[in-house]
Amino acid sequence: MTHPQQFASDNYAGICPEALAAMVRANAGSTPAYGEDEWTQRAADAFRALFETACEVFFAFNGTAANSLALASLCQSYHSVICSAHAHVETDECGAPEFFSNGSKLLVAQTETGKLTPEAVRSLATSRGDIHFPKPRVVTITQPTETGQVYTVAEIEALSATCRELGLRLHMDGARFAHACATLGCSPADLTWRAGVDVLCFGGTKNGMAVGEAILFFDPALACDFDYRCKQAGQLASKMRFLSAPWVGLLESGAWLANARHANACAQRLAEGVRELPGVAPMFPVEANAVFLTAPEPVLEGLRARGWRFYTFIGGGARFMFAWDADLARVDDLVADLHAASAQALEALAS
Amino acid sequence: MTHPQQFASDNYAGICPEALAAMVRANAGSTPAYGEDEWTQRAADAFRALFETACEVFFAFNGTAANSLALASLCQSYHSVICSAHAHVETDECGAPEFFSNGSKLLVAQTETGKLTPEAVRSLATSRGDIHFPKPRVVTITQPTETGQVYTVAEIEALSATCRELGLRLHMDGARFAHACATLGCSPADLTWRAGVDVLCFGGTKNGMAVGEAILFFDPALACDFDYRCKQAGQLASKMRFLSAPWVGLLESGAWLANARHANACAQRLAEGVRELPGVAPMFPVEANAVFLTAPEPVLEGLRARGWRFYTFIGGGARFMFAWDADLARVDDLVADLHAASAQALEALAS
Amino acid sequence: MTHPQQFASDNYAGICPEALAAMVRANAGSTPAYGEDEWTQRAADAFRALFETACEVFFAFNGTAANSLALASLCQSYHSVICSAHAHVETDECGAPEFFSNGSKLLVAQTETGKLTPEAVRSLATSRGDIHFPKPRVVTITQPTETGQVYTVAEIEALSATCRELGLRLHMDGARFAHACATLGCSPADLTWRAGVDVLCFGGTKNGMAVGEAILFFDPALACDFDYRCKQAGQLASKMRFLSAPWVGLLESGAWLANARHANACAQRLAEGVRELPGVAPMFPVEANAVFLTAPEPVLEGLRARGWRFYTFIGGGARFMFAWDADLARVDDLVADLHAASAQALEALAS
Amino acid sequence: MTHPQQFASDNYAGICPEALAAMVRANAGSTPAYGEDEWTQRAADAFRALFETACEVFFAFNGTAANSLALASLCQSYHSVICSAHAHVETDECGAPEFFSNGSKLLVAQTETGKLTPEAVRSLATSRGDIHFPKPRVVTITQPTETGQVYTVAEIEALSATCRELGLRLHMDGARFAHACATLGCSPADLTWRAGVDVLCFGGTKNGMAVGEAILFFDPALACDFDYRCKQAGQLASKMRFLSAPWVGLLESGAWLANARHANACAQRLAEGVRELPGVAPMFPVEANAVFLTAPEPVLEGLRARGWRFYTFIGGGARFMFAWDADLARVDDLVADLHAASAQALEALAS
Repeated sequence: MTHPQQFASDNYAGICPEALAAMVRANAGSTPAYGEDEWTQRAADAFRALFETACEVFFAFNGTAANSLALASLCQSYHSVICSAHAHVETDECGAPEFFSNGSKLLVAQTETGKLTPEAVRSLATSRGDIHFPKPRVVTITQPTETGQVYTVAEIEALSATCRELGLRLHMDGARFAHACATLGCSPADLTWRAGVDVLCFGGTKNGMAVGEAILFFDPALACDFDYRCKQAGQLASKMRFLSAPWVGLLESGAWLANARHANACAQRLAEGVRELPGVAPMFPVEANAVFLTAPEPVLEGLRARGWRFYTFIGGGARFMFAWDADLARVDDLVADLHAASAQALEALAS
Repeated sequence: MTHPQQFASDNYAGICPEALAAMVRANAGSTPAYGEDEWTQRAADAFRALFETACEVFFAFNGTAANSLALASLCQSYHSVICSAHAHVETDECGAPEFFSNGSKLLVAQTETGKLTPEAVRSLATSRGDIHFPKPRVVTITQPTETGQVYTVAEIEALSATCRELGLRLHMDGARFAHACATLGCSPADLTWRAGVDVLCFGGTKNGMAVGEAILFFDPALACDFDYRCKQAGQLASKMRFLSAPWVGLLESGAWLANARHANACAQRLAEGVRELPGVAPMFPVEANAVFLTAPEPVLEGLRARGWRFYTFIGGGARFMFAWDADLARVDDLVADLHAASAQALEALAS
Repeated sequence: MTHPQQFASDNYAGICPEALAAMVRANAGSTPAYGEDEWTQRAADAFRALFETACEVFFAFNGTAANSLALASLCQSYHSVICSAHAHVETDECGAPEFFSNGSKLLVAQTETGKLTPEAVRSLATSRGDIHFPKPRVVTITQPTETGQVYTVAEIEALSATCRELGLRLHMDGARFAHACATLGCSPADLTWRAGVDVLCFGGTKNGMAVGEAILFFDPALACDFDYRCKQAGQLASKMRFLSAPWVGLLESGAWLANARHANACAQRLAEGVRELPGVAPMFPVEANAVFLTAPEPVLEGLRARGWRFYTFIGGGARFMFAWDADLARVDDLVADLHAASAQALEALAS
Repeated sequence: MTHPQQFASDNYAGICPEALAAMVRANAGSTPAYGEDEWTQRAADAFRALFETACEVFFAFNGTAANSLALASLCQSYHSVICSAHAHVETDECGAPEFFSNGSKLLVAQTETGKLTPEAVRSLATSRGDIHFPKPRVVTITQPTETGQVYTVAEIEALSATCRELGLRLHMDGARFAHACATLGCSPADLTWRAGVDVLCFGGTKNGMAVGEAILFFDPALACDFDYRCKQAGQLASKMRFLSAPWVGLLESGAWLANARHANACAQRLAEGVRELPGVAPMFPVEANAVFLTAPEPVLEGLRARGWRFYTFIGGGARFMFAWDADLARVDDLVADLHAASAQALEALAS
């Protein structure tokens, strides 16, 4: 049932060895359920060590739920959430944030780079002050963004300062948080609570796990009763060890960062590999594990003809996402096929 | 990190070999996400083969979500759901059915055995007919019940006939459905759609999986847009193969039934082992993998002193639940310890 | 279109003169919308004067919404609300509390009198402490109860002391709050915030208004953003003066209390009028504007034959509810018809 | 408490004589509650006569609720609703549609005129077809729009044809529906069901009532259980006659149309009155009871100085809305003050 590796999505990858090994180790014997086990304790402690703070840690099954639950815990149904027009919560979660919060509206900022800015936040947060419009309560940023750019520490600090001034909370959707850490080379603490982030959803699935995300509350008061919220919303695993042990595998081994570095490096390799190709270029700065290539349609056709799968849902660009398991040789194959397709297209044009 | 096996919950067990092997096999290579993969197709087909019908199959992360989503798909917020006072949806899901349905009320029947009866359903469904009370729309039964009794085919048929007459849908919470099949020795089809069940939640976690439940709609019309419902509610796994492959492992090997049979047999062994003990007896007929023992408090104390963990939340009885991995020698240890504790208690009483 | 007066419900009455006059006065001229008008200010001030405290006052369209919004503001979806089995929120609001709160479960106490007791509250609030069960957060009492009994100040104080001890909030459903004040002869302040009530829903409809209830938060912190909650839930009137002016009419004239006293007196008159009748008696103490009469079925039949409409949904007793407009002569007619029906029934029995 | 008439909002007006008279007539005597009365029957019949069809009629307290309940009845939480960027449901209902539907997302079309077009509907409805995005299910149009333009019968027919083709339902927010009828001079039937509208919310408040909107389902199947939905959502009036009798007053007398005609005529008078003024002009075609004037800031200042209140929330233009009670002499005062303010501004500029 295996196929040549594709880079259409970083969800196509399986479980990385460190996570799988931990699951298998955790499988031995009889263990208390619902998180009362030693693996869960150990995973939470590993997060606290990594983030150098006594944060509250919860485990959910997927990113849709992790983000939606976190946002719902920060606002009431009549509040609103400020996000970028490209944010996954806005474009790809089928109304999950609205569902979990029972109606909190997303206020969408159009920005040039797809990153939220203090100005965009301020503009949306202060545009209305009457009760006919949901009261802004939370800002959510995606780190890195859907198109693969990272917020610097300074950018996050500027956003959080604006949030504090306006009475807003700051949430970070870190579906690929590890990749931002790898790019910026800074500590998880610097990128989050030290910069003013209140809640982080740290993605496990795209970091090498089978299933599972972690939700970290840096202000313990915000975590009040969050365990009940998870339970009611169908996000409490009975055999919790299988959500938590993989984190132990990832965090204690350093694989969380090594996986991200590898994925980022593959993206760089692709970006560099097409530098000379006429008409082919990254649409956005390549700062994480994603490359969106703009290319003449015949080149994209040539790629498809050579067996490559990819999405073109953003601006018609071909998206390539690299996971922990990306094979550098396959990346080189992709570069070579791009060159071949380009040459063929030019030839066809010339004839 | 391992401990002597406990029987406090069948959630204490890990992943059974067949499920784990399938996960490991599924881990090879790059695979489309969100259920567009071959493992998910194969698991759905395995369900259709097992149930001898072209049912619609969905996969959710846990039982709370599976049951709540299924119920929400069968009713609107102003409808109500008839269940037993002992039903898990009523007692142990923290309001999840009300949350997922945005307010559907559970109408609770008190019955002698904990099983719903046509009379109890009719009585609740016809008690009110005005708009000040939520309109009954669904009946949910747990097979086997929380206390380990099974509904016979005839009982289910009688319930579904009443449902059809009253315009109600019939949902089955089958968190331990395999155990009911093992007990009754009848086919899954006979226990469900042939007897009039509309939707079944088939439990994987208690059957040997790490995480995951299947939702089967026997009337495809009821499954309309259910995939959107799962997505919005945070129950769509991106790496779906890890929810579906274990089902392939369980269903194609027959382990789903073997696991249940073994668990049931352990329950029988415990029940038989205490038959002669004065004051110690099952509180309910032992028809699946659960034994609720009534016993003098000093006996229970003696058990605890010997290291046994168990719950007493129903009527003060000690609950023992057996999983696929229950060690018969440990069951015999438990029986022996019960005998020893009983003897000690009698002695103390005599002195 | 008028008919002989019936006492089946106190919702059968129209608008009392004081409320209607205020509506008509308020109808003059152009007035700001959404509560920015002088009538609304004046009504809120009248409540603050009546309750002798700077409470926060909101106006909703009906009791279902007022109670549900108040409860929703006191708890999250995974919390629970303790109420009596007879509470209107449990029996007659079609799941509205669950809908507005997005899933908060009602925990129902069975008590002898239908009134909640500190013991019943404590028992429900402490029965479970695990996350599989919604966390108790609010107690709601109906003053007077659905069957027309009043909580004394001492009873409310005892309940609020238990609430404070257990970390619960105390809500009062005062659909007929005026009637309780009339019965007990104590000040609204003594019956509410001085006795520890956090939030009161004060019923206007059953007190002589066309439509409208007031929600009073005695702790202003609890009222935070409640205006947004009302707006989102479709409970903000654009022409608010027509919800608030009638309150000015009721409160400034004292009609709120006079109406209630009159209704209560009618109930007493009926209760006294049947004192000698064999087999006919109030089922519950008559402490407000309701009388539930137990009577032999032939007597009830005789009443119906004489043109009386009444409900028998509680224990088969005939309910009579008196409004501000109850005509004493019609009450006397009812008493006379009861005597006649009784005599006829006895005669039939004798023959 | 009266003030010189303002035209900032058509919610500033009171109850028109025909509606008030009906309320007063309805106030006589004892009447069954919850819509079981003759006034409610008569109002529903009056709607059926006016619309020349056996539609199902419901009464809600305000427009926020009427629209939100209607939309919620047409879709599930994971569906989406297509609307204009200017639609009231998007801009001024504080997330009510999302709240009542438990998460249905609004998909917002930017169009030149603020009116939805078949092309805009098609573009949004077909932009995504995957389960990560809420499935389009309903189109809602505001007739007339927030800025006072009307959809012609042909435009509605074109929209409904597109809806039918795409499997969408068509909802009409008719907060000022009467004004559109007055402008177009066509029958309510031609403007709604004959043109393919499925559900209409017909505004009573802006047509001369104190409170209340009607919801008309032209396809009775869509109205299934809608009474339960209203009850659960706190929108069932106990003394329903006070919501329905005013409709009898409006519809049977023809005041519904006369009120709208008068309001529209006031808007025309204002528009004509400023025709010659330099720099002052309607921002949008004046087709109903609203005029949005663009004017130099000193002119607006001059108006304010002369005591006029108005909003400038759309494009900085001054909004004037005329109600049934608009005094033509006051409209002329406004025109005169605009001329005076303009002259003064020009003078200031010249000096």
